Amino acid sequence: MKDRPIGVFDSGVGGLTVVKQLMKEMPNEDIIYFGDTARVPYGTKSESTIRKFSIENVLFLLNFNVKLIIIACNTSSAIGLPFLSKFFSVPIIGVIKPGAKAAIRATRNGRIGVIGTNATITSGAYEQEVRSINPRIKVFSRSCPLFVPLAEEGWANDGIVEAAAKKYLSGFKEKGIDTVILGCTHYPLLKKAIGKALGKTVKLVDSAEETAREAKNLLEECGAKYPGKRTGRTKFYVSDAPEKFMDVAKKFLGKDVKAAEQVKDV
Amino acid sequence: MKDRPIGVFDSGVGGLTVVKQLMKEMPNEDIIYFGDTARVPYGTKSESTIRKFSIENVLFLLNFNVKLIIIACNTSSAIGLPFLSKFFSVPIIGVIKPGAKAAIRATRNGRIGVIGTNATITSGAYEQEVRSINPRIKVFSRSCPLFVPLAEEGWANDGIVEAAAKKYLSGFKEKGIDTVILGCTHYPLLKKAIGKALGKTVKLVDSAEETAREAKNLLEECGAKYPGKRTGRTKFYVSDAPEKFMDVAKKFLGKDVKAAEQVKDV
Repeated sequence: MKDRPIGVFDSGVGGLTVVKQLMKEMPNEDIIYFGDTARVPYGTKSESTIRKFSIENVLFLLNFNVKLIIIACNTSSAIGLPFLSKFFSVPIIGVIKPGAKAAIRATRNGRIGVIGTNATITSGAYEQEVRSINPRIKVFSRSCPLFVPLAEEGWANDGIVEAAAKKYLSGFKEKGIDTVILGCTHYPLLKKAIGKALGKTVKLVDSAEETAREAKNLLEECGAKYPGKRTGRTKFYVSDAPEKFMDVAKKFLGKDVKAAEQVKDV
Repeated sequence: MKDRPIGVFDSGVGGLTVVKQLMKEMPNEDIIYFGDTARVPYGTKSESTIRKFSIENVLFLLNFNVKLIIIACNTSSAIGLPFLSKFFSVPIIGVIKPGAKAAIRATRNGRIGVIGTNATITSGAYEQEVRSINPRIKVFSRSCPLFVPLAEEGWANDGIVEAAAKKYLSGFKEKGIDTVILGCTHYPLLKKAIGKALGKTVKLVDSAEETAREAKNLLEECGAKYPGKRTGRTKFYVSDAPEKFMDVAKKFLGKDVKAAEQVKDV
């Protein structure tokens, strides 16, 4: 059990921000990453399709005998996690609960904003999670569908991103929010423009660090953490051709991905 | 043969602009439309994945015993058509050749611009097509990856679209281009902003009308056109949940889509 790998999946590359934190938190664990780059994005698709893709991704990772699955995608966590946990016996965690916890710790005035894809925001997953931990906190949410293509276009520090951020987030200013959850793994790339649109006093929370900590706690609790000293290996699988993935992976992972294998049929 | 339907596929909704012109050109023909809304977009994916999806779409349409297949998607036409024509015996046409022909007719100074997705522009399909018809015409191309999400966000007449159009197209102005091919079925929705960025004297060409005419000519040539008087029926199939497709279809088709059926496994 202890030397089995941790499985991580995402609709594309964004989930690598979680892998980065996992490597920091548990450098001796092996990781299998799957990015569904042939069918990305998930955030604009319907619940039934996101559920179908999520099941297929779990089944793919189970081929590697993983001891834990981390859904490193907000959309798939919001829509898929509740029923995946029911279907499969392997422990599965998502990024919503860790993100909500981090935001609750960060807020001073109990007013939290959430931004994400259409599917994540429509699901209401963050509101439900925050409410179940502390029902007195007020949550305001807004979908920002253009942030993913803008981040992928590499226009992070362009006036166009700032204009889009202003358009999406102007409503948050009047609400007196002091903390905003970046509810999509692409959004940290646009932190500067989002921060500018919200104002300096608003804290931005991304769930990657907290998710890695939750994974560690869970493995320790069930005695499944690798105990020895070694450098864990990470293998990357994608559904589209690997070249583009390897190109952009550096932005998210903070280091080069030397090889990624294409999976024909997920 | 004559009463068999025409098959049309696209990565999503954009191909409905072609269906609209087909209905105008040949109102007595039956049409089967397939939009691959669960895997949209194609334009950011690799050639091998676009080819795989295109084959699957053709195989799906063949279930309906179609007499002609129209690839109403620029990306799939650019990447998929050359080998689909080799693999399958059913006649298959795309939107690239009709678009190139229309642009060649429209240009006065022999300087044509092409805009499209990453995959379409990288393929060089429009340049090759124009060159094979008239090698003296100069073609300049530019991919505009944000235009599809901008059109889908419904920000067609927003300053942000104008800023993006200016950023993408400023290089075209110096080239003395007098005609630009809208090499993606989404782009006609952004005609106003694109026209503003290029200047009034530049003609914008979209290939939907010309494609419908080519389809009609082809059916007449092989004696497969439906000869009688009737109102043709159009059936819509999609791979994601049909609700969103039906919502946005009106923008592209110019009228309501009353029903669309979800296909589970394309």
